[in-house]
Amino acid sequence: MDIAHIALTRHTCKAYDPSRQIPAEQVAQLETLLRFAPSSVNSQPWHFFIAHSDAAKARVAKAAAEGSPYAANGPKIRHASHVVVLCAKTWIDDEHVAALLTQEERDGRFPTSEGKEMQARGRQFYVGLHRADPAGMLAWTQRQVYLALGTLLFGAGALGIDATPIEGFDANLLDEELGLAAQSLKSTVVVALGYRSADDFNARLPKSRLPKERVISELG
Amino acid sequence: MDIAHIALTRHTCKAYDPSRQIPAEQVAQLETLLRFAPSSVNSQPWHFFIAHSDAAKARVAKAAAEGSPYAANGPKIRHASHVVVLCAKTWIDDEHVAALLTQEERDGRFPTSEGKEMQARGRQFYVGLHRADPAGMLAWTQRQVYLALGTLLFGAGALGIDATPIEGFDANLLDEELGLAAQSLKSTVVVALGYRSADDFNARLPKSRLPKERVISELG
Repeated sequence: MDIAHIALTRHTCKAYDPSRQIPAEQVAQLETLLRFAPSSVNSQPWHFFIAHSDAAKARVAKAAAEGSPYAANGPKIRHASHVVVLCAKTWIDDEHVAALLTQEERDGRFPTSEGKEMQARGRQFYVGLHRADPAGMLAWTQRQVYLALGTLLFGAGALGIDATPIEGFDANLLDEELGLAAQSLKSTVVVALGYRSADDFNARLPKSRLPKERVISELG
Repeated sequence: MDIAHIALTRHTCKAYDPSRQIPAEQVAQLETLLRFAPSSVNSQPWHFFIAHSDAAKARVAKAAAEGSPYAANGPKIRHASHVVVLCAKTWIDDEHVAALLTQEERDGRFPTSEGKEMQARGRQFYVGLHRADPAGMLAWTQRQVYLALGTLLFGAGALGIDATPIEGFDANLLDEELGLAAQSLKSTVVVALGYRSADDFNARLPKSRLPKERVISELG
């Protein structure tokens, strides 16, 4: 598989063809990518809301309304086939930690009780580090969400689906619209997914990256 | 391409065979994945140090020394074929912003001077948002590094290369060892890459994830 080719040819889509929809089988693949994305100590500190109907996309697009600094992103959200709102947990509580361990046991990851004990202790150590720094907790969970974001964007590229990662939206407004605070969630990044229209000027432009020597060094 | 299959079969490697090396051609592909990973407003706020020699890996492994809470990660770092230290910029300065624009122009992204002006203004807006919140600047750049991390882990999986994302290391010690503060960089996450040994117990265990309904919702 020519993996580098995917990285070199995917691009950030700037305009979608609203008439084209992602086939259900590929949406299912993208959901699998999100759900099975890796995360620190398998914490999965996230929730992904998927908007597909026009009404659902309009709700998300409220966070990039006309007249706001994010207005340019509204049409991408409304015209995409599917829009994912990637949210981070604002806190990892005991119930979540217990649910992870129960699930791992159910999935067969603990052939011995020692293994279960080790996993519980290891995760508690790292979760504890971040609980000790409440401001850092959300920064940590949001980093995990970006790990899932990287997986999603690359996977979409491999499937020939156009994508737009969007940081430019009113996160507080979207949190309110989706009732996220009550779910201990924070909207972190939005991804539009679908197929470019003829107006996607970025599809015609070359990619640009800093020279290799500026971003990669071999350690001596 | 069965993209979901990659997500379902990759795993976090727990022990490496020190005798096996990643072929140079595949290392080059992984470097391309890192360098061409997407980032907000194409900011590329990162630097990737690659350790391949035993001496270089030993330097990184100092941050997971015997007797530290991170001791279990030392052998993974020392026995892997290649180890990447993914670093985030602690600040995005005017020189970096100017270098991005110059590079984009050189790469042919501005057929019109209006395009160049638009790109400069757009990026300045988002960089400005994060400069206004100095504590949040590093959180932002570290999120971008995790986007590159997601790309790297998925790409390694697709190439049949085992990988271990490692948050458990002494970041301050590693920053010191690599002289990162003077380069306005912060070590953010380490990835060991190579091939599992027979001691990699995780290769034999099933993956575990929370039920779909707990992490994915369709928005109404």
